[in-house]
Amino acid sequence: GDAAAAAAWAAREPRLTKPAGSLGRLEDLSGWLSTWQGRHPPRLDAPCARIFAGNHGVAALGVSAFPAEVTVQMVANFQHGGAAINQLCRTFGVALDVVSIDLDRPTADFTQGPALSEAEFAAAFQAGIDAVPEGADLLVLGEMGIGNTTPAAALACALYGGEAADWTGRGTGVEGGALARKIEVVAAGVARHRGLPPLEILRALGGRELVALAGATVAARMHRVPVLLDGYVVTAAVAALKAVRPDALDHCRVAHVSAEPGHRRLLAALGTEPLLDLGLRLGEGSGAALAVGLLRGALACHNGMATFDEAGVSDKG
Amino acid sequence: GDAAAAAAWAAREPRLTKPAGSLGRLEDLSGWLSTWQGRHPPRLDAPCARIFAGNHGVAALGVSAFPAEVTVQMVANFQHGGAAINQLCRTFGVALDVVSIDLDRPTADFTQGPALSEAEFAAAFQAGIDAVPEGADLLVLGEMGIGNTTPAAALACALYGGEAADWTGRGTGVEGGALARKIEVVAAGVARHRGLPPLEILRALGGRELVALAGATVAARMHRVPVLLDGYVVTAAVAALKAVRPDALDHCRVAHVSAEPGHRRLLAALGTEPLLDLGLRLGEGSGAALAVGLLRGALACHNGMATFDEAGVSDKG
Repeated sequence: GDAAAAAAWAAREPRLTKPAGSLGRLEDLSGWLSTWQGRHPPRLDAPCARIFAGNHGVAALGVSAFPAEVTVQMVANFQHGGAAINQLCRTFGVALDVVSIDLDRPTADFTQGPALSEAEFAAAFQAGIDAVPEGADLLVLGEMGIGNTTPAAALACALYGGEAADWTGRGTGVEGGALARKIEVVAAGVARHRGLPPLEILRALGGRELVALAGATVAARMHRVPVLLDGYVVTAAVAALKAVRPDALDHCRVAHVSAEPGHRRLLAALGTEPLLDLGLRLGEGSGAALAVGLLRGALACHNGMATFDEAGVSDKG
Repeated sequence: GDAAAAAAWAAREPRLTKPAGSLGRLEDLSGWLSTWQGRHPPRLDAPCARIFAGNHGVAALGVSAFPAEVTVQMVANFQHGGAAINQLCRTFGVALDVVSIDLDRPTADFTQGPALSEAEFAAAFQAGIDAVPEGADLLVLGEMGIGNTTPAAALACALYGGEAADWTGRGTGVEGGALARKIEVVAAGVARHRGLPPLEILRALGGRELVALAGATVAARMHRVPVLLDGYVVTAAVAALKAVRPDALDHCRVAHVSAEPGHRRLLAALGTEPLLDLGLRLGEGSGAALAVGLLRGALACHNGMATFDEAGVSDKG
């Protein structure tokens, strides 16, 4: 973060016509944007969303309520403007782009071996890096990939321990025997790839869109672009970065906590609080795009409010 | 609510390209707007905010960190566009108006007698009714009044029982001895006016802006205008309506839970969940204006998303 921008933010905020601290987390948000954009006042002139899509070998094991061809169908829906993320990006003025990564080549079944080869991992990581536009002043990260709450659960379990059942939820809506099967798949993957370093865990249990999310998060840090993370899959994908380096996600905020129960557990493990808790479990970056509204409100307050002196309002008596 | 509008909403929502229920509370919000606007699709063409301001006899007892003249100073700040609520209303396209009610006549000290006479109560209630424009399609309710978390705490305690300390918080920032004094004032008011019916409790312990908030909430129901309630003071003001009639607040949603601890307790007593939990404690309708962003996102999704048929996406397998 940029110390001069942070100092400029901290000099202005207490002069605004409100009791100190009374805008709660909106104050944190405008300060965070200023610090990581490296400028004061912070602005949202060019927020962008990048949705990464990939397919998963484990989908063939019956871990999702939807068939795998839905990934490419939903990518077409994004491109035609029909999905939830399109509506939310339009509402909050966010430029959306979808990055499909080898949808015709699902990852390998991670219960049998690593999901990705080293070359595949590197290509997906690079796709994430390349997707971050240098001129952006905010990056909203989302994903699409039928079956991908299974790698998310496996990653979280491998990084933080506990039982597979603690980290595995219904995803798009699996029930009963299918949920039990999903838990078995997660447990088998974690057992198969035990003891690897964090980025090797991401290669073994992740998928192309998850690896790209990690790459985009690293690139955003280089380009001074603050990042809004979406739900369980996005958070699990970048958790490996924090395992490598504790401050790796300081330029990120988690936009919302998903209805997927593993996400709340993962946020606790990461020591972070979500901005929204609305029972969303769609993915696509939908919760992160929604949280752009909060950021717009936070910036409007910090940048636009009168000071006590300007308004002739008496400060605390 | 309007059954035909609710049915039209319920017919469309499950056909949208997402797993059933995956937009969580956004789905509830678009359905709620449709039901209470009495139309489908729901729209936000004319959302308006009304901020009621009043002064309080108890302010002279040292219950606030700010002097009482700040009420009129902040009203001027609203009129000149310098407050947080101005920035938030501009951000989310909400038409703001401020209604000051007899700022030069504080209420009576409620530890000595009723805060308002019957005539004063009626005038304030009518001011609330008159402030709701018939053409509005959403009403954001907020308030300003130095010292008014004290009547809010007293109202909540009188309506729901418990100790004064359970309902009394720091407001704009009282500490130590001043907080102890505030708790004593709340306890004395509740003891002085024990056993009254709900609207008489509102007259005895409330204030002009609180009574006007109740009047506006009733008027909105008549005009089919859904209402976003703000923080502790607004929720306490309308709680008396629910005590009179259990469905009286069905056209309302509570936008956020305040950092004021009594608010969370009050929401539990009312059996409602806030939309946002961001540690705000400013009042002015700031949390409710911020939640308009969530409503805009919810409407955009319900009204704008493609259906499974339109997008050629496979439904649940």
